[in-house]
Amino acid sequence: MCLITSYSAYAEYRATGDLGVVIERAKGSVLIINTSQRTKLSQIQALGDLSHASVVFSRDQRYAFIFGRDGGLSKIDLLQDKIDKRIIQAGNSIGGAISQDGRLIAVSNYTPGGIKIFSTETLELVADIPAEYGDHKLSKVVGLVDAPNQHFVFSLFDAGEIWLVDVNNPKKPIITKFKGVGKQPYDALLTPDGRYYIAGLFAEQGLALLDLWNPEIGVKRILSDYGKKDEKLPVYKMPHLEGWAVAGDFMLIPAIGQHQVLVVDKRLWTLVKRIPVAGQPVFVMARPDGRQIWVNFAFPDNQQLQIIDTKDLKVIKSLLPGKAVLHMEFTPRGEEVWVSIRDDNQLVIYNTESFKEIKRLAAEKPSGIFFSSRAHKMGL
Amino acid sequence: MCLITSYSAYAEYRATGDLGVVIERAKGSVLIINTSQRTKLSQIQALGDLSHASVVFSRDQRYAFIFGRDGGLSKIDLLQDKIDKRIIQAGNSIGGAISQDGRLIAVSNYTPGGIKIFSTETLELVADIPAEYGDHKLSKVVGLVDAPNQHFVFSLFDAGEIWLVDVNNPKKPIITKFKGVGKQPYDALLTPDGRYYIAGLFAEQGLALLDLWNPEIGVKRILSDYGKKDEKLPVYKMPHLEGWAVAGDFMLIPAIGQHQVLVVDKRLWTLVKRIPVAGQPVFVMARPDGRQIWVNFAFPDNQQLQIIDTKDLKVIKSLLPGKAVLHMEFTPRGEEVWVSIRDDNQLVIYNTESFKEIKRLAAEKPSGIFFSSRAHKMGL
Repeated sequence: MCLITSYSAYAEYRATGDLGVVIERAKGSVLIINTSQRTKLSQIQALGDLSHASVVFSRDQRYAFIFGRDGGLSKIDLLQDKIDKRIIQAGNSIGGAISQDGRLIAVSNYTPGGIKIFSTETLELVADIPAEYGDHKLSKVVGLVDAPNQHFVFSLFDAGEIWLVDVNNPKKPIITKFKGVGKQPYDALLTPDGRYYIAGLFAEQGLALLDLWNPEIGVKRILSDYGKKDEKLPVYKMPHLEGWAVAGDFMLIPAIGQHQVLVVDKRLWTLVKRIPVAGQPVFVMARPDGRQIWVNFAFPDNQQLQIIDTKDLKVIKSLLPGKAVLHMEFTPRGEEVWVSIRDDNQLVIYNTESFKEIKRLAAEKPSGIFFSSRAHKMGL
Repeated sequence: MCLITSYSAYAEYRATGDLGVVIERAKGSVLIINTSQRTKLSQIQALGDLSHASVVFSRDQRYAFIFGRDGGLSKIDLLQDKIDKRIIQAGNSIGGAISQDGRLIAVSNYTPGGIKIFSTETLELVADIPAEYGDHKLSKVVGLVDAPNQHFVFSLFDAGEIWLVDVNNPKKPIITKFKGVGKQPYDALLTPDGRYYIAGLFAEQGLALLDLWNPEIGVKRILSDYGKKDEKLPVYKMPHLEGWAVAGDFMLIPAIGQHQVLVVDKRLWTLVKRIPVAGQPVFVMARPDGRQIWVNFAFPDNQQLQIIDTKDLKVIKSLLPGKAVLHMEFTPRGEEVWVSIRDDNQLVIYNTESFKEIKRLAAEKPSGIFFSSRAHKMGL
């Protein structure tokens, strides 16, 4: 019997190590791309509202899970170029994470405030964790990440809390709540070793730090003095902490309300340096070897890209890729970077050593770029 | 026209993110395995002498390149379960590396001493670099790794040199030689950030350190005092430095001729602690989050496995998996570890938090275990 159909995966052998997904936010579609050939493989449509969409990958790298702003959770099959499953799981969601073992997907929701946990295989609901605080109020959830030993960690924007959830038994999640961590945590990061969870605070100075090796110590405040005396500039776009950067002993994070990248000593958690940059940083991302940090900016400076050399902690290059540079993603070993330019409807690929432009690809209002190598990383 | 053949990749969709290769050294075969299903997918035979074989993966994770002791270089297709190409490129080889861009494979040879560089696509010879020293002698080459910006780094055992090779133009490699680095470098490691190349010395104390961010400074000696006054125990098997472990600020390496794991401060390059272990350590490997270090041993202690907790730098667990524990490989996010037990003809899978045995699989005299997630890492 002949099993051939029109699906491309039958007609070709397709490996999944060099694939990626690009969000086309206005159209509600995604592109499946190949970073070795630097080509578009297909476009998947009808994925709902993809403004502020993010993506995680199954541990075999076959499936991409797309978190839409409208509460949609879509499972894309990267081998068959199609939607495998799609559900609407909430009214308004902001992102998600995949468990260490790859069997669970957690989504962080604004309305109703909380997280929901689904089976990656079936997208069936496994656990529902409302972010309840005070007098039965529900908080927006932000900064949701996976952590070692089958944990998820997230922050409650309205409650000023950080919750640590053990899902070794997903039917009976064990929740540890850290209260009073600071006003309005707006995003968070997990260090690449999975040890430190750090939430940025919008309504207070400093950041909230949780050491997952010593959770009994509780959450402590770091950098609580930074910017206290500085005049705040208007913030047109919130910086993303998940675009954090760890390089050697330093962590580089976007300042908020200031045109600076902050350099933090990650042993002492002290501010080492402020690097002046072209605007309000949005993503501050390290090349995989940590030698370079690439920075993009909020409006009105979002036509620019700046590169910091971590050897001297100085800006060594400024690029003008086009109108509205929204996101960057490095190839797994860092030789190239893909950049999305929303208002030019293009993706640009740069060589990270020569800064030469290698190729441009058409895309409809591209925003987030996510490569399948993320499947093997913690905290994304 | 119907394209169907008997190859399994036609009959199933196979993603490549959770695949691996296990060396069956005595038979000259390898197993292709799946770490999500914990199953064997196929066995590929007729690969020559696989004693001391190692493996790297193409950047799309479709192909595994196997370096045999007999100079064989085999390219295995993980989607079609077959040998794609195989050549005999030297008389005696010890390992290899794949370039940052995935287009070049370098093999380190004992006879003739040197490295050869091949196209990953065709296995055609691109460059031949004899390890010539002194009076036209050729040195055995060890510790070959890939490094950022299309470089390879390796050590000359007989010459006591470290060579840095820029292959941005593979037809015209640019070689920088560091001489007099120490007697008999026997293996080397690259730190995960791709910055430091460290070679172990067999006939001298200490290790040779090359900072790839500052190569003009040259190679410096570190830990030159360690073990000077200690009585040396016989070394039945050379430790592997590629089984290095970086955890937070520390690097853990196997002592040589001593039943110890050495803890090095990787900012000051000083010896912080010696951890007594059950025998001569062979592989000292960090779980991806750096919280645990798993150690196996040379004969006569090779039935044991010990686990060090890097929070306290103490052995917290000892396991007896079986006869002749040769190698370990962690799943990409560290929830499980696969262990090869040569003389029991088995692979054992452990959960790394509970240390519970999850499954055993039959394998013929298994040695090295290599997962496809290595495709996205530097220096392996």
